[in-house]
Amino acid sequence: MEKDPALRLRVFDLNCWAIRYLSKRRQERIRLIGDRLCQEGFDLVLLQEIWSERDYSDLKAKLGGCCPFSHYFRSGVIGSGLCIFSKFPILDTLLYQYSLNGYPYMLQHGDWFCGKSVGLVVVRIAEITFNIYVTHLHAEYSREKDAYLPHRVVQAWELAQFIRHTAKAADVVLLGGDLNMHPGDVGIRLLRGWTGLQDAFTEAKHFEGCEDGCTLIPNNCFTVKSELQPFPLGIRIDYILYKAVSSFTVKCEELRTTTGTVPGMDIPYSDHEAVMAMLCIQRRGQTAGVTIGTAMPALVEVLSEARTEVCMGLLAARRQRYSSGRMAVLAVLLLLLQAVGVLGVLGGLAAGKPFPALSFSLLAFLALAILLLAAGLHLFHSIEVKMLQGTEEQMEMAMRGLQEQPLHRH
Amino acid sequence: MEKDPALRLRVFDLNCWAIRYLSKRRQERIRLIGDRLCQEGFDLVLLQEIWSERDYSDLKAKLGGCCPFSHYFRSGVIGSGLCIFSKFPILDTLLYQYSLNGYPYMLQHGDWFCGKSVGLVVVRIAEITFNIYVTHLHAEYSREKDAYLPHRVVQAWELAQFIRHTAKAADVVLLGGDLNMHPGDVGIRLLRGWTGLQDAFTEAKHFEGCEDGCTLIPNNCFTVKSELQPFPLGIRIDYILYKAVSSFTVKCEELRTTTGTVPGMDIPYSDHEAVMAMLCIQRRGQTAGVTIGTAMPALVEVLSEARTEVCMGLLAARRQRYSSGRMAVLAVLLLLLQAVGVLGVLGGLAAGKPFPALSFSLLAFLALAILLLAAGLHLFHSIEVKMLQGTEEQMEMAMRGLQEQPLHRH
Repeated sequence: MEKDPALRLRVFDLNCWAIRYLSKRRQERIRLIGDRLCQEGFDLVLLQEIWSERDYSDLKAKLGGCCPFSHYFRSGVIGSGLCIFSKFPILDTLLYQYSLNGYPYMLQHGDWFCGKSVGLVVVRIAEITFNIYVTHLHAEYSREKDAYLPHRVVQAWELAQFIRHTAKAADVVLLGGDLNMHPGDVGIRLLRGWTGLQDAFTEAKHFEGCEDGCTLIPNNCFTVKSELQPFPLGIRIDYILYKAVSSFTVKCEELRTTTGTVPGMDIPYSDHEAVMAMLCIQRRGQTAGVTIGTAMPALVEVLSEARTEVCMGLLAARRQRYSSGRMAVLAVLLLLLQAVGVLGVLGGLAAGKPFPALSFSLLAFLALAILLLAAGLHLFHSIEVKMLQGTEEQMEMAMRGLQEQPLHRH
Repeated sequence: MEKDPALRLRVFDLNCWAIRYLSKRRQERIRLIGDRLCQEGFDLVLLQEIWSERDYSDLKAKLGGCCPFSHYFRSGVIGSGLCIFSKFPILDTLLYQYSLNGYPYMLQHGDWFCGKSVGLVVVRIAEITFNIYVTHLHAEYSREKDAYLPHRVVQAWELAQFIRHTAKAADVVLLGGDLNMHPGDVGIRLLRGWTGLQDAFTEAKHFEGCEDGCTLIPNNCFTVKSELQPFPLGIRIDYILYKAVSSFTVKCEELRTTTGTVPGMDIPYSDHEAVMAMLCIQRRGQTAGVTIGTAMPALVEVLSEARTEVCMGLLAARRQRYSSGRMAVLAVLLLLLQAVGVLGVLGGLAAGKPFPALSFSLLAFLALAILLLAAGLHLFHSIEVKMLQGTEEQMEMAMRGLQEQPLHRH
């Protein structure tokens, strides 16, 4: 049986760190990114942290020649930051917003406001249907005391579930993005094991770029050196992952990363390095059996590990729900006490003594402010508990399913 | 070619109106619902508004014999209210939360807090893969001045998109739920046209129940009579919809609704009537052509109508975003003015005159409260604008796609 000619696809992925007013030399860098993309002519460009629609429009105008099709995913207060440029027509899109994404009161870690999501576009190239996903998971602010780990594990699970459920008619699945996880982290193992996605870096025949494929390196003048101290080479948290259904094969022929400063300039494109892959897609002569991402016992182990993290998060969320509820009750008691005091004064119990109206009203306002705050927190942590519980249950169902019917998962 | 024997499936759908502390005679009704389900032995039971996990557990315990498999979908502050009971093992689940769902400050219309969603479970019966969806869309509080229409249209669109993207490997698709739309409403036409789903009521060979298949009827003692005044027979807003891929056919052999009061009791099961369908699923001898839900020009027309509703919503959301922003600015100005006043007093400008500390601090607190409120509203309406814009763009893309390649939509 004769093989079809191979399809070669060049994919670009970058977290652009383009936060208005906050990111350094943003407009200049967006221009540089646009120039590089025009020059190299990629087939698919997956970008994260393009927070301003103006930046997206600028890129769109610049890439009109080489990537005439594009989609900007809108969500959250300031958007999802996700966009895709493509050489081929985009047939359909869908956005899935993760149910958990940090805490609104952690203003210094703005993740909650970003509406972290996964975006999907469907593209057909040479009669092959591609489901292309772009995403950005919750940042890791401290590796030792990572308060967001349960949220990130929930996101990795939802990402895997979303891909599994939406990619059933796709011939090739591609995922690019800043996953904020190291290659061995439980979330990555969960995502890869549960979807069967392969890592372009480990599969690449030829690699060129930062050592170990790192995408957050100390050499980049925008990275925070203290955060990277335990990792002298840097860390790899940006990925291009892929898989094909059984009648196709995908191979990564070449993977490259940028290496800090843009040639001939004094700044890099972003605080992350770009990941660039050359993929080779081929129709198989004969249909092979179902590919299994991770051996079954290993997958059950990963699921159980992930579930433990979710359970830890559940404990913490329940504690926070309880203490915010208690604070709200205390505020109500304080208000009641004050009401009794006012009634006492009106009833003439403290006749003669001057009534301290100012401090009284200040105290009442304080109690009211605490009540509102505590009620808001209680509401928020109640949602968190619900979501963590739901994920835990789903993971349990998945484990049960694996143990009962090991071949039904793809 | 010999046909496989037909598979007969009995489906039950009901909005249970089981809100703790609010719904009348809730526990009694849940017991009655459980009794009926046990007695009739349905294959699939799709319930909405089961807000309390306790009610779910009670039903689960009662249905253990006839529907041993079940799933409760968790989301939002008080859950999604959605659950599914099944005679057959549930292989997988996924929940998609709609991006827009009313306003948090409309406390009297609690929809926002419910985290309205669509839940999916995957079930295999007799080697046929079923994707079963259950959902509940935003309520319609006034048909004349329906402020939530754009949100409901966005939900109908997201529901249709979610089904299209996740059902690609399913043989049969089933959707049950309270869609809060009349059969001719734009949202229903959009959902049915865009997914190809068929309405069990209009397709049923045999019907028994309320006239016109109404599910909210004046005869039910829990319905608000004034709301139903323009519709003497009631309205039909609860649906069972279905479709099959080309190698299967689904027919609705019988459709029934409850008709108010439970036989032998003085109350109905809920304020809604239950919808009960007997579906007949058959493998086709030969594969037929692609089924088209709605003729192409009609679908483009529905899409354009829906887009107009979304655009109207966008205008309103932009107005509200603007006025909340203006209110926040005014509050900031008031605070600044007060700061100038305090500085003046401290600088001795008003020496001799008594400083009105109480009214001053009250005013400051008021300004602060307005600022917080207005900022919150501004944030919220910014998200709303983003989401409406995103949906409008997606609809536009869909219309363009339809006009260019009319056969790519299923």
